[in-house]
Amino acid sequence: MDFFFNPRGIAVIGATPGKTKGGNVILNNLITGFKGKIYPVNPRYKEIEGLTCYDSVRRVPDPADLAIVFIPASMVPQAILECVEREIPGVIIESGGFAEAGEEGIVLQETLKQIAEETGIRLWGPNCMGLVDTARRHVFSFASPTIWNENFVPGKVSLIVQSGMLSGVFLIDAMTHGTLDISKVCSIGNKADVNECDILEYLMKDPETSVIGLYLESIANGRRFMEICRKSEKPVVLLRGGKSVKGAKAAMSHTASLAGNNAVISGAMAQAGVLEASDFKQMMDICRSLAMFPPCPADSPASLRGEGREEGGRIAVLTYSGGAGIVSADFIAASGLELSELSPLTLAAMKTVFPDWMPVSNPVDLWPAVELNGAKRAYETAVSAVCADPHVDALFLHVFVGGFALKPEIDSVAKTARDAGKPMFCFLLGDREETWQFQKQAQRLGVAVFRELNRCVECMKAVFEQKKILERRKFPVSTGAGVPLPEKWTEAMKGRKGSLDEHLSKRILSACKIPVVEEKIAASVEDALSCASTFGFPVVMKGLWPGKMHKTELGLVRLGISSENAVKTNFESLKSAMPESGKVLIQKQIHGELELIVGLIRDPQFGACVMCGLGGVLAEVLEDAVFGVAPLSKVQALDMIGRLKSQKLLNGFRGAQPLDREMLAQILICVGDLGCICPQIKEIDINPLIVSKGKPTAADALVVLNG
Amino acid sequence: MDFFFNPRGIAVIGATPGKTKGGNVILNNLITGFKGKIYPVNPRYKEIEGLTCYDSVRRVPDPADLAIVFIPASMVPQAILECVEREIPGVIIESGGFAEAGEEGIVLQETLKQIAEETGIRLWGPNCMGLVDTARRHVFSFASPTIWNENFVPGKVSLIVQSGMLSGVFLIDAMTHGTLDISKVCSIGNKADVNECDILEYLMKDPETSVIGLYLESIANGRRFMEICRKSEKPVVLLRGGKSVKGAKAAMSHTASLAGNNAVISGAMAQAGVLEASDFKQMMDICRSLAMFPPCPADSPASLRGEGREEGGRIAVLTYSGGAGIVSADFIAASGLELSELSPLTLAAMKTVFPDWMPVSNPVDLWPAVELNGAKRAYETAVSAVCADPHVDALFLHVFVGGFALKPEIDSVAKTARDAGKPMFCFLLGDREETWQFQKQAQRLGVAVFRELNRCVECMKAVFEQKKILERRKFPVSTGAGVPLPEKWTEAMKGRKGSLDEHLSKRILSACKIPVVEEKIAASVEDALSCASTFGFPVVMKGLWPGKMHKTELGLVRLGISSENAVKTNFESLKSAMPESGKVLIQKQIHGELELIVGLIRDPQFGACVMCGLGGVLAEVLEDAVFGVAPLSKVQALDMIGRLKSQKLLNGFRGAQPLDREMLAQILICVGDLGCICPQIKEIDINPLIVSKGKPTAADALVVLNG
Repeated sequence: MDFFFNPRGIAVIGATPGKTKGGNVILNNLITGFKGKIYPVNPRYKEIEGLTCYDSVRRVPDPADLAIVFIPASMVPQAILECVEREIPGVIIESGGFAEAGEEGIVLQETLKQIAEETGIRLWGPNCMGLVDTARRHVFSFASPTIWNENFVPGKVSLIVQSGMLSGVFLIDAMTHGTLDISKVCSIGNKADVNECDILEYLMKDPETSVIGLYLESIANGRRFMEICRKSEKPVVLLRGGKSVKGAKAAMSHTASLAGNNAVISGAMAQAGVLEASDFKQMMDICRSLAMFPPCPADSPASLRGEGREEGGRIAVLTYSGGAGIVSADFIAASGLELSELSPLTLAAMKTVFPDWMPVSNPVDLWPAVELNGAKRAYETAVSAVCADPHVDALFLHVFVGGFALKPEIDSVAKTARDAGKPMFCFLLGDREETWQFQKQAQRLGVAVFRELNRCVECMKAVFEQKKILERRKFPVSTGAGVPLPEKWTEAMKGRKGSLDEHLSKRILSACKIPVVEEKIAASVEDALSCASTFGFPVVMKGLWPGKMHKTELGLVRLGISSENAVKTNFESLKSAMPESGKVLIQKQIHGELELIVGLIRDPQFGACVMCGLGGVLAEVLEDAVFGVAPLSKVQALDMIGRLKSQKLLNGFRGAQPLDREMLAQILICVGDLGCICPQIKEIDINPLIVSKGKPTAADALVVLNG
Repeated sequence: MDFFFNPRGIAVIGATPGKTKGGNVILNNLITGFKGKIYPVNPRYKEIEGLTCYDSVRRVPDPADLAIVFIPASMVPQAILECVEREIPGVIIESGGFAEAGEEGIVLQETLKQIAEETGIRLWGPNCMGLVDTARRHVFSFASPTIWNENFVPGKVSLIVQSGMLSGVFLIDAMTHGTLDISKVCSIGNKADVNECDILEYLMKDPETSVIGLYLESIANGRRFMEICRKSEKPVVLLRGGKSVKGAKAAMSHTASLAGNNAVISGAMAQAGVLEASDFKQMMDICRSLAMFPPCPADSPASLRGEGREEGGRIAVLTYSGGAGIVSADFIAASGLELSELSPLTLAAMKTVFPDWMPVSNPVDLWPAVELNGAKRAYETAVSAVCADPHVDALFLHVFVGGFALKPEIDSVAKTARDAGKPMFCFLLGDREETWQFQKQAQRLGVAVFRELNRCVECMKAVFEQKKILERRKFPVSTGAGVPLPEKWTEAMKGRKGSLDEHLSKRILSACKIPVVEEKIAASVEDALSCASTFGFPVVMKGLWPGKMHKTELGLVRLGISSENAVKTNFESLKSAMPESGKVLIQKQIHGELELIVGLIRDPQFGACVMCGLGGVLAEVLEDAVFGVAPLSKVQALDMIGRLKSQKLLNGFRGAQPLDREMLAQILICVGDLGCICPQIKEIDINPLIVSKGKPTAADALVVLNG
C-alpha cells in the first residue's frame, strides 16, 4: 500500500488546464505539495501548468507508481487497463458515476473489481476524494487547496472516511477551527478494491498516526477488520452510518453498501477493542483526546464481572463558577467517572489562596480565590495542589477568557499537569476571538479544550475507558475446536434440512455439554406417567409435529401438569391434535429466577456470531442483548456477559443467587464452536435458558440447518 | 417588580472612582446605557465620573426607585435600612459574602430576609451579577461592559441564572459567538428575597421575552413556579444543577441551596409544561430554536396513551454529503422524529436538477445536482420542492462554506422556507471565518444554525415537542376534594403516630375506593380455614406485629399456602412468632402480569407528590418511576402514566391484557387527594400494586402518619 502514500511519481489521468475543473485542482495540489514527479495525462494537451502532458498513461516515463484518475466513469476501465500495461501498481479513482449511480454504474464498478482481481493492480475508490497527508503536504484530491495551505498543522489523528464529501469537509472545518490535528485523511468511496481494512492495516503501522477515526457505512470484511485491530495498540474510534432502519435505507442508496445488523457490528467492535462514536464532531473530539492522552499500556486483565469502576477516572474540577462545577459533577457522576476525594494536604494547599470563610471541596469554585489573589495565583495554586494529589487522575479546568480578569496563565498550569502526567481537560467559554486564540495555545500545550461540558466529560470517559477497551484486543482467542461433537450427531444432521425438532436440537446441544432440561419422548401413556414420576410434578408436555416449528401457536405446549390424570388427558389430546408421526415430549418443569436467550446466527460480514440476552418479560422492555463473533475464548465469553446492561439482575437480586457466569460463558463458547465446526448449522436458538439458583438450563431449543 | 427593570433613577451604593473596582464598573455601565438618573453613593467622594456623589442613600434626590449595592457584606444591612428610610422600593445586592460564605454570612443573609419581610422592600441577590437588558442597553451589573457594547443585538430569549458568574459568562460567550439573541439576563444569586418565581412571573408578561431559559440549583417555591408556568404560553427551558448526589452536595456548598429530589422535580416540571435541558449551551440552543420557531397554539388534547408520534416533526434532509444524510437519518429515527416520505411531485421537481441516473429520496444528497447545476440552483430547487410538500414539517439543510462551490444562497432559500411557514435548521461546517459570517446571516434570516448534527436534531425535537409540553399547562387541575374519606377513618387516625399496620392501611385506602386484595384478620385457626375456603387456595398469611414494619424480614409473610393443613401450621407458627398482641392476616393470593408501585411523599418544595412506578424484578433494572404533584386531575394522572418508560408493558405484552389506565389514574388521584385532605399522612406506599388482566389491586400497603 505504500505506493498510495509515498509514490515516487504520479500520473494524473484527466489533468486539464481549466482552472475550475477537478483535474486541474488535482494537478495544482500535487505541484504545491508533492516532491516527486508529476505526469499530466490528457490526449488533448501537450503541456499543462508547465508540465509535459502525455496522451496516454502508457507513455508516462519512470518513476510513476501511482495514477490519480478523474475522467468520466465510462472511460475509467480503459484507463485502468492502460495503467496495468504501464505496470503502475496503484490507482486512486476519484471519478463518480459507479455503484452509487444506478445500474450502469454498478456494471462499471464490477469491471474495475474484476480488473483488480485479475491483474493485481490496487484500485482506491471510485467515487472518493483520495488522500491528504498533512505531514508530507500531500493532497491527492480534487478538493480545493486554497484554504488549508496555511493551516497544515500536522497531527497524529488519521481518518478513514467512506463518504467522499465528508473527508474534505471535515478536514477544512477541523483545520480552520483548530479543533483537530490531523495526520492523514483517506477518502475510500465505493471500495471497489481497496477498503477500510487495507488502509487501517497501513495506518496501524504508520509512525505518524497514533489514533484512527473511521466513518463507515459498511464493514467490508468484518473478521479481517477485527484481526487488524487485535494486532495493534492504537485506539480506533468508529462512527457508523445506517444504524437505524431509515439510515440503513439511505446508506444503501448512498455508497451502495449494506449497513449490516447494528447489534452484531456493535458486539464485534467491542470484541475488537474499538470505541464507537455517535456524531461527527464527537468522533473527532474523542480522537484528538485519545491522541493527546494515550491510554496506559494494559498490564492487568480488566474486571470481567461487570462490577466496579474503571481504574483511574477520578476527576478534580477547578471552576470559576459554582454552577458550572455542579453541572460538571452531575455529568461526571452520570458518565461513571468519579469526582476525586481531595486529600487534606491538597485542601490545605488550596486554602492558602481562599478567603477564610470559604469551605474548599471538589468541584473547587475558584472565584473567591481569584477575587482575593488574582486568576494567575488562584489557578496555579489549585492546579499544583490537585496535581500532587494521588486521588486525582485528571483535571477538569473551567476557563473564561474575555473579561472578569479570570484568565489563567495556561503555560504554567499546563506544564504542571504535564509534569505530573495528569491529563488536563478544559471547558472554555468567552469572547469569540479570545477563546480561539486560547484554544490554539492550550492545545499546543497538551490541554484538550472543549466548548461544552458534556462533550468534555464524554472525552474524559473515552480516555479512561480506552485502557479497558484495548485490553480486549489481548484477550486469548479460541480455535473453535472446543466442542467434541460426537460423530453420530454430525451423521444425524447429514441429509437433513431446515429446523430440527426440539428434542433432537437439545440432544445435539447436550452432546456438546450444554445443560438441557430432563426430558423424554413418551411412547405411551404409561411411559409418560413413568417419566412424570421420575421427574416429579409439575411436568411440561409438548407435541412434536414433524416440520412444524411453532408449537405454542398450535396449542402443543402444556405447562404445569400436576397430576397423573392430567398427564393422561394431555397425552391423549396432544396425540389427537397431531398426525400419526407426531410425538409427545415430556419434561421436568423448571422454575428460575431469570430467563435468558442464547443463540447463534450467521452474519454476512462477521460469520458465526453468538447472541446472549435477557429473555421473558424483560426482553420486552430492555432489549438487552449482546453479540460476539465465534469462536469465543472464555475471557471473551465472560466479557460478553459483562456487556449486558442488566448486571444488577445477573449479580443476584433480592437475595437470589448470582448467575454462574463461568457456566453461561461455557454455553456461549459451545454454541459458537458448534457454529464453527458445523457449517450446516444456520441458526441456534435456546429460548428460554432458565437460570435457577444461578445455574442456566436450556428449557427449549431449536437448531436450524441450511436449506 | 417593574422598578428593577425600568427604574427612573438608580442609586449606586459603593460607587467608586477606582477603575478596576466593581463599584466603578457598575456606575460606568449605567452611564453608558441607562437613560434615567444616576446617583453615586459613597461618603468618601463628592463627585465620581462627573456625577454628584452622596454620602448616604438617604440624601439621594428624586427620582430614585432602585439601588444597586456593591459594598462589603457586613455593611449591607445598614445600607438597606437606609434605602427603606429613603422609600426606595427595590435593591439589587451584588456583594458576596452571605449564605455561600459560612456561618457569619448566613446570619447576615437572614438579617436581609427579615428586613425585606418586615418593610416590604424587595431585595434582589445578594451574591449575584444583577440584570442586563439588551433592548434598553441596561447593564445593572459589575460585569465589564467593554466586550458587549458592539454586540448588543436584542433578542427574544431571557435567562434567569442562579449562579452569578455564569450569567455574565453566558452573555459574553453567546453574544460574541452570535449563538443566542438575548433579551434579558437576570442573575439572582442567593435569592434572599426576590427569587426565580418573582422574575419568571415578570418575564412571562414581558413583551420583549418570548422564551425563558433558567439555570437553577434549587426551586424556592415549587407550587408557585408551576402556577406561573400554567398561566403562560411562553416556553420555559430549565437546566438544573445538582441532579446527582455529588452534584447536589456541590450545590449545597455553592449557593447554599437544596437541590431537592431529582425525580420529584422532573415530574413537577413535566406537569408544569417545562422542558428540561442537560447542558448550558444545549439549553441556549434549545431556547434560541424555540424563540425562532414558536410552537403552534395547542388546540387539541395530546395523546395521553403513550402511543404514537407527536404531530408534525416530519423532516426533509437536504445534504451535500450522503454520509451526513445517513447519520442525520439515524439521529432523526432515534429522536422520535421522522424522515418525510417525499411526495411524487416533490421528487419529480427535484429530478430536474439531478443527473438521470440519480435516484432521489430523503435524505436528499444534493452533491450530484450541485455538480450539474451549481449550488444555487440545486439548493433552491430542492428547498422549493420540499417546502411545497405537505409531508414536510421542517427542513434540515446541510451547508458547507469555504470550498467545493457548495454554498447555497441562503437569502432565497430562507425566504422560501419562511414563506412556507416551515422551520429551517442548518448543520454548518466549513472555514472558521466563513461559517461565522454565514451563521450570523442565516440567523438573521430565521434559520437556526448548528455545528453538530445531534444538537440540531435535539433542537428540532424540542420545537416539535413544545406543543405537547405546553398542552400540559392547559390540563384541568383538581381541587383535591375528590376523596370522600368517611369520617370514621379520619377519627381512626387521630392520636396515632408512625406506620399503620397493613390491614388498617388497606382499609383506609379501600374506603377511598382503591381496590385492595380480599383479606381478613383471622381470629382463630377455624376463622383462617373459613377465610381460605372463601378466598380459594392458594392464600397468603401474614403476621401483623404492632409497631413492626418489616414483615418479610421477620419471617411473617407466608406465600402460596395451598392446603388446609398448611393454613393450620402457618397460623400456629405465626402466632407463636409474635407477642400476644400480634394478629394473623389472611389474604387471597393474586397473580398478575405486572407489578407496580404507587406511593405518596411530601416534598419540601412541592408538597404532596404521587409516585407511580414499575415494581418487582423490573424495578431492579428499569428504575422506571414518575412523580406528579397532588392533587391530580384525571388528565394529569393519565399523563403521568404516559410518562413511564415501560409503555410496551403497560400496553399488554405477549397477549396480556392492556393496563386499565383509567383505573390506575383513579388510584393515583385518590392517593394524591388523600395526601391533600389528610395532612397527618406523611407517606403512602402501595407495593405491590398487582395488575391482573389489566386491573390493578393493592396487594400490600402501608400508610405512615406524622410523628
